[in-house]
Amino acid sequence: MRRISFWLLAIASVSGVLASTAPASGRADEEAVPIFGIKIPSGYRDWRLISVAHEEGSLNDIRAMLGNDKAIRAYRAGAPPFPDTTIIARIAWAYVPSEENDKVFGRAQSFVPGSAPDWYLQFMVKDSKKFAATGGWGYAQFNKDGKPADEAKLQTCFPCHEAIKDRDFVFTRYAP
Amino acid sequence: MRRISFWLLAIASVSGVLASTAPASGRADEEAVPIFGIKIPSGYRDWRLISVAHEEGSLNDIRAMLGNDKAIRAYRAGAPPFPDTTIIARIAWAYVPSEENDKVFGRAQSFVPGSAPDWYLQFMVKDSKKFAATGGWGYAQFNKDGKPADEAKLQTCFPCHEAIKDRDFVFTRYAP
Repeated sequence: MRRISFWLLAIASVSGVLASTAPASGRADEEAVPIFGIKIPSGYRDWRLISVAHEEGSLNDIRAMLGNDKAIRAYRAGAPPFPDTTIIARIAWAYVPSEENDKVFGRAQSFVPGSAPDWYLQFMVKDSKKFAATGGWGYAQFNKDGKPADEAKLQTCFPCHEAIKDRDFVFTRYAP
Repeated sequence: MRRISFWLLAIASVSGVLASTAPASGRADEEAVPIFGIKIPSGYRDWRLISVAHEEGSLNDIRAMLGNDKAIRAYRAGAPPFPDTTIIARIAWAYVPSEENDKVFGRAQSFVPGSAPDWYLQFMVKDSKKFAATGGWGYAQFNKDGKPADEAKLQTCFPCHEAIKDRDFVFTRYAP
């Protein structure tokens, strides 16, 4: 698998993201991502929807991008560019046919979220000073157990995002 | 197109859903759906995410299911079944390749939301008394201009949902 594709449909960010326990509304994590020092933001699963996507190839996932209040306000006001303290969360699930739905319709019809892949959670955190070397964004990735990706993996993020500097390094557009 | 597929990845509900203007957080609509009398709920675009899906065939869309507070609480507590005043919203967009993303990766990679189809918005509203004849749920559909589907179309909803009575007539499962 190409490591750069981990960061495919990316996503925003902010400095000072705190870990916390959020049993129903997001995963708890005490481990910070290497390099960028980002922890899983509290309550991200309660954030509002930015958009959805299906990624093909080795990823083969279906995903939702959620944004903190700063992100949603910025998108609705026409972002990119995004202000500091923006955070974009990306949740991915395996892309699987829904056997129970297909049975009702008598044909292949629905593809739905399956199990959590190793690249289950990603975050982009905007802090134009702290993350100046990577376009003003910090990057984080966690598996379903809250374990962060290693440094080598996280170093593959920016080279891909750099290609879309004119979109403030963010792949995802807002879906109305 | 098979009309029943309009209601494919369905969704919840409540009586007394009010129309309102919500320019940034949802579409405004003054027209109620025939039969069920449901209007577009205020602020639905700000609701929390239940799940996502891709529908194949003539629908060929990518969609997000959002829930009001009652819906989210119920799902996280193990629903179905869902309590009265639950509302599930379903937003659909055309399923299109992202040319701008694919260009970065040099291959077909991303499928993202395109334009709004005629079945852009759907709602399921739970009111076990008011909608007793259709499993306790009322159904509504609107296009991007807020125009509701006609009665003939809405009468195709329940026959499909009836097949999943054991899931309280709701196709969508919560994606963690």
